[in-house]
Amino acid sequence: MVTGESDFIGLMRALADDPAARGLADDVAVIEIGGETLVLTHDMIVEGIHYRPNDPPEGVAWKLVAVNLSDLAGKGAEPLGALLGYALGDNDWDRAFAKGLATVTSVFGLKLLGGDTVAMPAGAPRALGLTALGRASGPVPARSGAQPGDHLWLSGTVGDAGAGLERLEAGFHDPAYLIERYRNPRPRLEAGARLAPQVTAMMDISDGLLIDAGRMAEASGCAVAIALDDLPLSADYLALRGAGRDTRLAAATAGDDYELLFAAPPVAAVAILALADEIALPLSRIGAFEAGTGLVLADAAGPVALPERLGFEHRR
Amino acid sequence: MVTGESDFIGLMRALADDPAARGLADDVAVIEIGGETLVLTHDMIVEGIHYRPNDPPEGVAWKLVAVNLSDLAGKGAEPLGALLGYALGDNDWDRAFAKGLATVTSVFGLKLLGGDTVAMPAGAPRALGLTALGRASGPVPARSGAQPGDHLWLSGTVGDAGAGLERLEAGFHDPAYLIERYRNPRPRLEAGARLAPQVTAMMDISDGLLIDAGRMAEASGCAVAIALDDLPLSADYLALRGAGRDTRLAAATAGDDYELLFAAPPVAAVAILALADEIALPLSRIGAFEAGTGLVLADAAGPVALPERLGFEHRR
Repeated sequence: MVTGESDFIGLMRALADDPAARGLADDVAVIEIGGETLVLTHDMIVEGIHYRPNDPPEGVAWKLVAVNLSDLAGKGAEPLGALLGYALGDNDWDRAFAKGLATVTSVFGLKLLGGDTVAMPAGAPRALGLTALGRASGPVPARSGAQPGDHLWLSGTVGDAGAGLERLEAGFHDPAYLIERYRNPRPRLEAGARLAPQVTAMMDISDGLLIDAGRMAEASGCAVAIALDDLPLSADYLALRGAGRDTRLAAATAGDDYELLFAAPPVAAVAILALADEIALPLSRIGAFEAGTGLVLADAAGPVALPERLGFEHRR
Repeated sequence: MVTGESDFIGLMRALADDPAARGLADDVAVIEIGGETLVLTHDMIVEGIHYRPNDPPEGVAWKLVAVNLSDLAGKGAEPLGALLGYALGDNDWDRAFAKGLATVTSVFGLKLLGGDTVAMPAGAPRALGLTALGRASGPVPARSGAQPGDHLWLSGTVGDAGAGLERLEAGFHDPAYLIERYRNPRPRLEAGARLAPQVTAMMDISDGLLIDAGRMAEASGCAVAIALDDLPLSADYLALRGAGRDTRLAAATAGDDYELLFAAPPVAAVAILALADEIALPLSRIGAFEAGTGLVLADAAGPVALPERLGFEHRR
């Protein structure tokens, strides 16, 4: 955790007293205007912090767009457009970034609407920002709505991106699927929009499943219990790492997943599983909310102690 | 001009083909939704480029907000809220910035709605971004609507901020008014909203009067002639520099003015001057649009050659 960050966020929270800000607790602002519900998010990525200086620029563009769209997905919003805050690098890098931006905006039907381009002092690491604007067609789920008795659900699989990054850092470029999951996360826009009316709470997970599930439970004033054996893991992840407890804990704390984490009452389970079939995306029940506070883990052998690190805390 | 910037902006322009993007030529995106007209802008400021590392953090916060609100003012939009992209510095700096942000948002009634806080690598110059969202209650003037025969108008005075910066860089901290004009520019929100229905083109000037007037003329497919003797200069500016031709050219190219530049048909002049009285802000007629292309200057002694540098070109 960066020294002072929680101080600064506390000061911002005190400033952001409009209901549309949702107490800065929900990744997005929600603005009602003209009978429409607008959802706004802004995420920055920084060279040397959120991406590696030698990452392909096309992938950096993908990630910048994907992390913002993932915030919209977590609120069930359809993307309307984006504004880019771009710090210039060298010409080749900028051109490759622009190419990547063309690709990712086309894949997700995102319109580039404006922004700003600035110079940085020579040699400075760069910070890139994107503001994404979306529209919700129904209620916008908060992360704070889970109720005791609700199930905890997760889209897709966890741990892939973290394993992909670890492979890259060790000098490998395979398995391709895991690298791709790190470089080109897919915001779960359709799933988010279809799930929004059925959930009591929803958010995207970026910092790690455990830390984000803990945040949802805390915001909702509940406890949450996660069944480690039920975590959805990809075939490539399992082939690389096996299916042991440590493997599952690593997947649950790795971050960069950009999957949807959501709470829903038991009665919604049938519809959620039917939706999973329809959109061909696994939606897995991984736990349940309970009265109380805190996060507990268990597997077939019984309770599992929480790892020391639950995910990335505030570093980004 | 930063090498490659125009290349990059060209690539972005090709991507931004939605009408809401206005060809990236208008500082803002204009989105029609639910019968409302939303105006969105995003500006970044970079340490060592747009502000000096030893500038007071409160002033940096002011400037970040003011430059974005000035873009809204230039389109006649009322601010609805903002998202902040913040790169953490040291704790004291961050706290002072937060204090400045509280002041400036309160002065302009701007709601902080969300954003992102990130760490930078140690010692890196920081980039800060703000996205401002506004609402227009009528048509949103472009910079491209001026017609031959229209007058060219300017709000407030020019050159003050540039002179203030020059004083600071020379180690002086007076005159207070000029320093204040550099550090705490006042976006002309009320004037912009009141003028929007009466103008054929409007924009804020940030890079310098001459370069921005040239841009308005070029976007409008007109020529523009500016009467140097009619430039509104403040008493402090005149006291510091006198009223000569060089002084006026310096004021017209200095930048950081954050005043409104607008075109209006001659028939609107009476209403514009009445508005100036009503809101106690000078609105000065400084030139006229003509058929043709280009920018020409004159004063009482006759034609004046264009200075080599018309303002800041793309450096920021």
